[in-house]
Amino acid sequence: MRIDRLAVIGVGLIGGSLARALRRANACGHVIGYAEREAELKRAVELGVIDDYGVDAASTVGGADMVIIAVPLSAVKGVFERIAGRLKEDAVITDVGSVKASVVTDARATLGDHLPWLVPGHPVAGTEKSGVEASFPELFEDRRVILTPIPETRADAVERVKLMWESTGATISTMAVTRHDEVLAATSHLPHVLAYSLVNTLANGPQSADVLRFAAGGFADFTRIASSSPRMWHDIVLANRDAILAMVEGFEQDLGLLMDAVKNNDTGKIMALFSSAKTVKDRFRSYQTASSVTRTGNTKDEHPADNACR
Amino acid sequence: MRIDRLAVIGVGLIGGSLARALRRANACGHVIGYAEREAELKRAVELGVIDDYGVDAASTVGGADMVIIAVPLSAVKGVFERIAGRLKEDAVITDVGSVKASVVTDARATLGDHLPWLVPGHPVAGTEKSGVEASFPELFEDRRVILTPIPETRADAVERVKLMWESTGATISTMAVTRHDEVLAATSHLPHVLAYSLVNTLANGPQSADVLRFAAGGFADFTRIASSSPRMWHDIVLANRDAILAMVEGFEQDLGLLMDAVKNNDTGKIMALFSSAKTVKDRFRSYQTASSVTRTGNTKDEHPADNACR
Repeated sequence: MRIDRLAVIGVGLIGGSLARALRRANACGHVIGYAEREAELKRAVELGVIDDYGVDAASTVGGADMVIIAVPLSAVKGVFERIAGRLKEDAVITDVGSVKASVVTDARATLGDHLPWLVPGHPVAGTEKSGVEASFPELFEDRRVILTPIPETRADAVERVKLMWESTGATISTMAVTRHDEVLAATSHLPHVLAYSLVNTLANGPQSADVLRFAAGGFADFTRIASSSPRMWHDIVLANRDAILAMVEGFEQDLGLLMDAVKNNDTGKIMALFSSAKTVKDRFRSYQTASSVTRTGNTKDEHPADNACR
Repeated sequence: MRIDRLAVIGVGLIGGSLARALRRANACGHVIGYAEREAELKRAVELGVIDDYGVDAASTVGGADMVIIAVPLSAVKGVFERIAGRLKEDAVITDVGSVKASVVTDARATLGDHLPWLVPGHPVAGTEKSGVEASFPELFEDRRVILTPIPETRADAVERVKLMWESTGATISTMAVTRHDEVLAATSHLPHVLAYSLVNTLANGPQSADVLRFAAGGFADFTRIASSSPRMWHDIVLANRDAILAMVEGFEQDLGLLMDAVKNNDTGKIMALFSSAKTVKDRFRSYQTASSVTRTGNTKDEHPADNACR
């Protein structure tokens, strides 16, 4: 399947990389973009990411066969509102948001008859950078893309989005909206929340200059995690609030267990907790290998192996 | 300065790598090792890490000019006890423990007249592996080594340990014992405790199979941190208990602030907390660059950029 006319609303790291990947795979014809800042759009044309750009979101989607919404979660609803009446009858819409329930709620409130053509999606990929300048066509290679169709979603729309993502080198999974948001709360949102919080604790604590000077590898990993876009993460924690609050609560309980064991000098309990975490890592590795999402020799991961912060 | 006879008690990742590094720099003559398991010692001889090995710790240190104690923190006191009366008069002792107060307490209780010859030390380096098989001579290149001499410590002993570490390519700092333990509680021990706890939370939570299958980069970083030796970390959390408990308490308060902001939809507060963490990362990077501990193009960090777990 080739996309004759592709519209990308939000030409940043993700939107830009998707456009580049589709062009590289010869999976699309004309690519038109839209973003809030015209300078970014001009740069995107210069870089060959898009062919041209529209003056607003509504005019950009006119005639498009496939519309990619790659804006922060809090901006999704506004985009839906603006494009709702302007879509080609069989135009497929998909998004790249890290939380899916909020996107579905926004879509139900705005898309009307076009709702069945929306395929909510989430490429589990990214870097700590943002903007079109940071985009590259290999971003999705061997990464997972999770699609969360709702009951109304047309099967042929899902199929078209699946084929599109496959041409970028990604592996596609399908999952219910709620399950997606719970799994991502655990694997991505909770770690980010902890990383942000830890970095703040250390930076504002006593001897913070020494802390930064003598930081070991563990801290470098955390600062790397914590350096992703504040705006993006603001939107994520509010959009997936309930799942994240529940995960944080569970984490606080587990941390409490470990700290109680430390307070009580409970050698057996401490060893059990530390050993079980090590076992999980091995299980995690086996899953990653089995599902072929292991990456070697590159730094295109969500949180790249960035030597500069070590 | 050349070390004529070097004794290494504990020929694992750190002890083995230090022996290799000193040999490579031609900074030592005969190297004798001791470890609990004879198989490890035989392997160390085969690998050329040590020349030969003793039947016990006491006989191993006889005649040595420099004694390296590279055993888990909980084994340090026993080693001190066994070697105390067997040291050459001017033999310098140093250790590699991640917590320094406990080592000093153990030394005061056991070393007697030899106490001034002890230079407590901590190379801030390592990998998630352990054992002599995992040792390599470049482990300490461009890494920090922190020495924490006590009032009794002889200046010439500090100088000899400093020269020894410099020949491995490390950068040497000196710090008070308490300050070392506080700074490391923040930069290393707290992150590890959180990582262990998080991995347990996720693995024991609902949908843990999905969690492992769809884990994003943030989680991979945590599992990597959490995969270090349980025994080593058991010893660390007990040896540095008070500093770690204080850090965890501070962290829990900061996490509480963020979660309250999320509960209250407090957009301004959330953005402020996330943005400040990002700022810290930039400060951290500038420190790392300024102090030349940035590493490029290798995976010898304390928590190597291990693509296999992504």
